[in-house]
Amino acid sequence: MRTIRLRISYDGTGYVGWQIQPNGPSIQQELTEAIERITGQRSIPVASGRTDAGVHALGQVAHFTTDSNLDADALVRALNANLSSQIVVHSAEAVDPSFDAVRHAINKHYRYVFHDGLVANVFMRQYCWKVRSRLDVGRVSEAARGLLGTHDFRCFETEWPNRASSVRTIRRCQATRLADFVYLDVEADGFLYNMVRAIAGTLREVGRGRWPPERIGRILESGDRSLAGPTAPAHGLFLVRVDYPPEILARPQ
Amino acid sequence: MRTIRLRISYDGTGYVGWQIQPNGPSIQQELTEAIERITGQRSIPVASGRTDAGVHALGQVAHFTTDSNLDADALVRALNANLSSQIVVHSAEAVDPSFDAVRHAINKHYRYVFHDGLVANVFMRQYCWKVRSRLDVGRVSEAARGLLGTHDFRCFETEWPNRASSVRTIRRCQATRLADFVYLDVEADGFLYNMVRAIAGTLREVGRGRWPPERIGRILESGDRSLAGPTAPAHGLFLVRVDYPPEILARPQ
Repeated sequence: MRTIRLRISYDGTGYVGWQIQPNGPSIQQELTEAIERITGQRSIPVASGRTDAGVHALGQVAHFTTDSNLDADALVRALNANLSSQIVVHSAEAVDPSFDAVRHAINKHYRYVFHDGLVANVFMRQYCWKVRSRLDVGRVSEAARGLLGTHDFRCFETEWPNRASSVRTIRRCQATRLADFVYLDVEADGFLYNMVRAIAGTLREVGRGRWPPERIGRILESGDRSLAGPTAPAHGLFLVRVDYPPEILARPQ
Repeated sequence: MRTIRLRISYDGTGYVGWQIQPNGPSIQQELTEAIERITGQRSIPVASGRTDAGVHALGQVAHFTTDSNLDADALVRALNANLSSQIVVHSAEAVDPSFDAVRHAINKHYRYVFHDGLVANVFMRQYCWKVRSRLDVGRVSEAARGLLGTHDFRCFETEWPNRASSVRTIRRCQATRLADFVYLDVEADGFLYNMVRAIAGTLREVGRGRWPPERIGRILESGDRSLAGPTAPAHGLFLVRVDYPPEILARPQ
């Protein structure tokens, strides 16, 4: 039995999200069916984290186990030939059999994309949140710095207290403007449910001048979800990258 | 009666093209309906040129006549509120009543987008032609230079001899690589039917090493469509910009 690690992109538009659900097409379901067609075995891939309906991924990581001896390149080609054009597998590699895409993840990078131009960009309409007011990136950046470090982030969690701990460490929280787009890049050791979207919704209030950047500290201290901003729409969110310790990625001998 | 000049972007995916046709949704139809809802008058906009099914536009130009006295900003807002998210109006301006988006165009810029990465880009799948072989941009550029200037381009016209003359002047024909994308930018005083797509299909043969760059000269001389490459798919093509003489754009006194 081999454990295979996949790196995957997907356009989340029209999917119910990563996880198999009875009410619509999911990324996990499509991958499971492709794996079964290729290997003859049903093996459900496990992703680093479930992305919600409409959320996109540039570099999601998932693992599955198989008896197949297909080499990595053949597996990538076969998977892509069996997936819809909204999902693509970039790489497949045999890893240590104990590899677990959820438990071993040490860093995740999400990007939230705002568009604040006067008129919408038709080609990006499913890949950003079109906001009406121009965002002041200086103010957003100042507020973003207040999120850096280790904090209890329950104020940004939709369904607290669903987890043992809501303490996480944000290593990067950075806003960058490129023409009419504002990118919010957030990296952390892990994320709570809807955390990036709640942060994006909150920083938007700062960026459009409604709230002072200092409010971020008070929201964090309060631990109160109702003091933070609304949850930003799913279609502006991208899972960019998931990192693992190099030793767990070493090919088994 | 005023003549209004519109600058428009659209995602051509799922449309039968610019022109009203009985067999599906067109950009022209949607704009006509939006104009009628806003002004109460039916006035069919005329574009600088018809784009085919699936072709996109960043800066299409169209004109229509109206009795409405709505100012430009109000018209833009009202049109965008009445259009689907695949079409957006960037500007509306009252111009000289004689303005004709077709006859007065003096320069058009089209961009054809290739993608030659190992795996597809899921977010760009409807906005580029995914080709399998890596393209040699040096070779494409050399061939592209052979198209510059005034020539009879009937070898790149799908339905010759539908026009009085197939002589056009290409001012720019330039290939640029950005990561796994190759952009082919073509500017001319006008284009024949399917001309950019036939050029793109031909330059691809050069770029993947099948044909030498010098072949372009022989194809042009022959005037024979069958010697050129296949017509590249519509979804890689963008109408970027249409230029007019400044005097015809002057606001009427």
